Amino acid sequence: MRLRVDLLPHGNYPDVVVIIDVLRATTTAVTYLERGADALLLTATPEIALNLRTDGSPYLLGGERGGLPIPGFDFGNSPVEAAGQNFTGKTVVMNTTNGTGAAHTAAQSGKHIFLAALTNAHAAARRARAAATEEIAIVCAGTDEHVGLEDVYAAGVLAEYLLAMGEFSIDDGARIALTVRRNGGNPLEALGSSGHGQHLTRLGLGEDVRAAAGLSTSTIVPTLTHDDAPEGTLKFTAG
Amino acid sequence: MRLRVDLLPHGNYPDVVVIIDVLRATTTAVTYLERGADALLLTATPEIALNLRTDGSPYLLGGERGGLPIPGFDFGNSPVEAAGQNFTGKTVVMNTTNGTGAAHTAAQSGKHIFLAALTNAHAAARRARAAATEEIAIVCAGTDEHVGLEDVYAAGVLAEYLLAMGEFSIDDGARIALTVRRNGGNPLEALGSSGHGQHLTRLGLGEDVRAAAGLSTSTIVPTLTHDDAPEGTLKFTAG
Ligand SMILES: [Ca+2]
Ligand SMILES: [Ca+2]
Ligand SMILES: [Ca+2]
Repeated sequence: MRLRVDLLPHGNYPDVVVIIDVLRATTTAVTYLERGADALLLTATPEIALNLRTDGSPYLLGGERGGLPIPGFDFGNSPVEAAGQNFTGKTVVMNTTNGTGAAHTAAQSGKHIFLAALTNAHAAARRARAAATEEIAIVCAGTDEHVGLEDVYAAGVLAEYLLAMGEFSIDDGARIALTVRRNGGNPLEALGSSGHGQHLTRLGLGEDVRAAAGLSTSTIVPTLTHDDAPEGTLKFTAG
Repeated sequence: MRLRVDLLPHGNYPDVVVIIDVLRATTTAVTYLERGADALLLTATPEIALNLRTDGSPYLLGGERGGLPIPGFDFGNSPVEAAGQNFTGKTVVMNTTNGTGAAHTAAQSGKHIFLAALTNAHAAARRARAAATEEIAIVCAGTDEHVGLEDVYAAGVLAEYLLAMGEFSIDDGARIALTVRRNGGNPLEALGSSGHGQHLTRLGLGEDVRAAAGLSTSTIVPTLTHDDAPEGTLKFTAG
């Protein structure tokens, strides 16, 4: 079995893909499902999300651009905000700067697509291991096509869990992620030292950084389903 | 001053760019100049290199694809092979899998372009620092669009030298490279554990890996000149 870590989304995924966008898309995705949401719809653009909302639709819209809310959206991609709500019976339509794009790249070729954060890292590793037949690719969303320390650190956490579960041949991306995980401090130190963590803290969103640093506190793994989803969206449910 | 490490070539370089392809393009480039070559011409494709060689031309061709020699080329991108030759009065035309492509990407926007390896790391850091007015971007060539541990390690070596020379704001790429440098073992251990280092060793090129692990043994820094160069080539001379 191969274990591969793409420090930025690359493509050509033959088997299992685990997408990581710790600050904050995949952390918030886990929280929406923890708080009862039926499903998440990840859209390629904010416009697709806005067009899905018609009168009486069961959709709530969550998203951000550069850490700030998107006009017309209900929620701002904040795990702290999401944790204070009840989403039972709702579907949350998500569009974020990097995480949703990475999911659409992965879905072009991957067979099994999961979303992972630090908060569900152990459960995500177990699900990935159970589904994989040849390769697990952990894909870091990054920030505007630049590598994000927070995502690489979380990839290292997943890689460490996976290596404890069985034999893998690993690539240089996995070697780097493991080195960052083992030498980058505890999760809050790693997230707090990242460029995007510092940016969010300056925006007054330091509580989100703290929430995203919780390690394996959830067993919910957002999982791509091939049930019908509106055009231009990917549907994830709790797995 | 900003210090940025791109773990893969990205583009949009406003100022100084230092290109790293430790195994083996930039290590070999340093060696050609050490051994007396007048200049290096980095070509975008092998065909451009082959077309430059006409009867009586002063050009020698060096290059590889996937670690193997290119048919019709004189040399195979090997620092060990280059170290045993005298290139005085010659210009070496180079085309390699990743390093020459990274140089062409960098040249699209960068103002000052240098080639760096472990062997000239300290000299390259000093040259970059002297030339920079706003940003030093260290660009890892990688292997077929995947991050290469050997390049990230060398980027961390340069970053460490630069941080000792002055104040920089650093990005997550630099943070990751520094962590890999400080925790990835000595240069030979780091190169030997990389996927490409293992590949070269399997091809019987382990001596090249050993040569590439020499730290700051040369003061030559291949530097892009805007003297006339044949179309489709970038001309580097010893700086
Ligand atoms: Ca992010
Ligand atoms: Ca290389
Ligand atoms: Ca000379």
